[in-house]
Amino acid sequence: MEQIHGGNIYDLAKEGKELLDFSANINPLGMPYGIKKAVESALNDSSRYPDIKSRQLIEKISEYEKLSASCIAVGNGAADLIYALCLSQRFKKALIMSPGFSEYEKALRASESKVEYLTLKAEEGFELKNHHLDLIDSSVDAIFLCQPNNPTGILTDGQMLRNIFCKCRENNVFIVADECFLEFVEKPEVYSLKSYINEGNVFILKSFTKLYAIAGIRLGYCICCNEKVIDKLNYFRQSWPVSNLAQSAGIAAFKEKEFVSSSLEYIKKEKQYLLESFEALGLKVYGSAANYLFFLSNEHKLYEKLIERGILIRSCKSYNVIPVGFYRIAIKSHRENERLIKELFDILKGGKNGKSAYDSRNNV
Amino acid sequence: MEQIHGGNIYDLAKEGKELLDFSANINPLGMPYGIKKAVESALNDSSRYPDIKSRQLIEKISEYEKLSASCIAVGNGAADLIYALCLSQRFKKALIMSPGFSEYEKALRASESKVEYLTLKAEEGFELKNHHLDLIDSSVDAIFLCQPNNPTGILTDGQMLRNIFCKCRENNVFIVADECFLEFVEKPEVYSLKSYINEGNVFILKSFTKLYAIAGIRLGYCICCNEKVIDKLNYFRQSWPVSNLAQSAGIAAFKEKEFVSSSLEYIKKEKQYLLESFEALGLKVYGSAANYLFFLSNEHKLYEKLIERGILIRSCKSYNVIPVGFYRIAIKSHRENERLIKELFDILKGGKNGKSAYDSRNNV
Repeated sequence: MEQIHGGNIYDLAKEGKELLDFSANINPLGMPYGIKKAVESALNDSSRYPDIKSRQLIEKISEYEKLSASCIAVGNGAADLIYALCLSQRFKKALIMSPGFSEYEKALRASESKVEYLTLKAEEGFELKNHHLDLIDSSVDAIFLCQPNNPTGILTDGQMLRNIFCKCRENNVFIVADECFLEFVEKPEVYSLKSYINEGNVFILKSFTKLYAIAGIRLGYCICCNEKVIDKLNYFRQSWPVSNLAQSAGIAAFKEKEFVSSSLEYIKKEKQYLLESFEALGLKVYGSAANYLFFLSNEHKLYEKLIERGILIRSCKSYNVIPVGFYRIAIKSHRENERLIKELFDILKGGKNGKSAYDSRNNV
Repeated sequence: MEQIHGGNIYDLAKEGKELLDFSANINPLGMPYGIKKAVESALNDSSRYPDIKSRQLIEKISEYEKLSASCIAVGNGAADLIYALCLSQRFKKALIMSPGFSEYEKALRASESKVEYLTLKAEEGFELKNHHLDLIDSSVDAIFLCQPNNPTGILTDGQMLRNIFCKCRENNVFIVADECFLEFVEKPEVYSLKSYINEGNVFILKSFTKLYAIAGIRLGYCICCNEKVIDKLNYFRQSWPVSNLAQSAGIAAFKEKEFVSSSLEYIKKEKQYLLESFEALGLKVYGSAANYLFFLSNEHKLYEKLIERGILIRSCKSYNVIPVGFYRIAIKSHRENERLIKELFDILKGGKNGKSAYDSRNNV
């Protein structure tokens, strides 16, 4: 069974399997109460069309980003904006990170762009290196960066970002920076392309989906200080891309400062727990900058064995550039993370006489 | 102030005006309780990504339409599907009805299609006539029909539909039939292109927005018995176009048979009331097949005068093919319709000494 996205529990549900989903990287604390209330209240008003211009939401984003409303567009998830950007710009040639989030390539191919890869190698720690800069030349229209990268959870450092930015400016290359997971990173400002936003050739994507756990509601936004880019993107979409409910969820999200800080604290603690447990299990973690871990296991059919035990992780088989044995898991609640570790322990260390190795070891 | 869509109360709200909105054609009974409950329940599950394939919803549509799931796509409103169709097909030349719903032309222009018009003339009652058939030739890739037409509320009869269909088949022209308002019409099957759906060159658009009063949630679908068209349309969109909430609303909608029949009965009665009142006011109604009326008034600045009285109607000024003086109003609740008639009476017949002409006449 091929996965090209995490969170696709529905294929498996159809086969009668209810799985604990470690494949989608959603805040384990779930949707904050304030957002739920805001959506319920907006539902009473949802016989009306949504505001075409998403005015109130864009005003909140404008305050938060300290940018004019004309630099902002909101979408039915960040993926909506990826398509609208690609279809409106029809880049002749684009560079994308490989492995990377698959929607960029899908949207570029639909727009008849030539796609070339910044291939991230296991032996280089899946990092962007100086030799990748050589691929940025005047034949390139756009480069898609994902910060931190998905599925690897690896960050590109500030110095490399600067090098990329300079090379792009020199060669008139448009930069699309997907920062949908950047809010989970410590000191996000160090790793953001936001400091270059006034240059006009930088387009940053952000999502509400992950941090606020509203993946089913769909909401994302983009910022770009080139009004022509924003206007053209809007021209390539329907008049009402963002539902009333999503607009209200987004407006409410900006009030959730306490929820955000406790989420980040919780995830940090659980990340530590998982990293230590993975080390004890002898599993090498390659990236963990965001709310997910990217790791290597030589266990044969680990993905299938976990499914048998009721757990869905993200197999990285669909990325043909990633060697066999790499997986991604979300950082979930402590109870769920413990369950994962227990099952991994049993699979990797083996259980005896119907008693699990984990239980024996822990004298349960 | 230019309107290109009804329901845009937000521009006016910004100016501090709370208006009674007759400009958006939404079921006056509002969202049924069953849909509201279903959305609230789905909200508890909306930390998850929506099902990429909208399986349960498509299954319901498949049963309802008696078509295989491969002939169906669902969208973030019908407008999402208009864009995905146009961007994926890139019709070289398309014919659209003028006046007509503006999203077709916007989507076609974004797709670099040449757009030509089936111009509907006031002196021909805004109907499609035999001379329009002459425009359908082998240079045309697609024709967009709206049944009944919006904003005119006028139906194309079964004989003309057959003529159009035959001419299109002869010339290999793809037919896009927007039947988003057809459920409001009596005997919709007589006026639908559904009977030609198996031919493969017919693409029908349907909306949940109007009948179920869920415009703010965004949900529409299309049917086409050409899997390549459906696949290509999906290829030109993000992976998660329809939110969890919208999918649940749609699934719940199919249970609302009683709501639908009482809605249609209510609208029929109110339509009769409005038609009689308009006649008494000397206003000529040109079309009323759906849940809205399209009418002519020679009153100077009628639109502005109604706004002053707290009522928003759809001015048809933005359709440059429609002569001055045409307007569209939705059929709303009896109380609201009475209010509209009262204000129209006062404007058209004039009030005296601060007492309204309507009140004097009705001995209030």
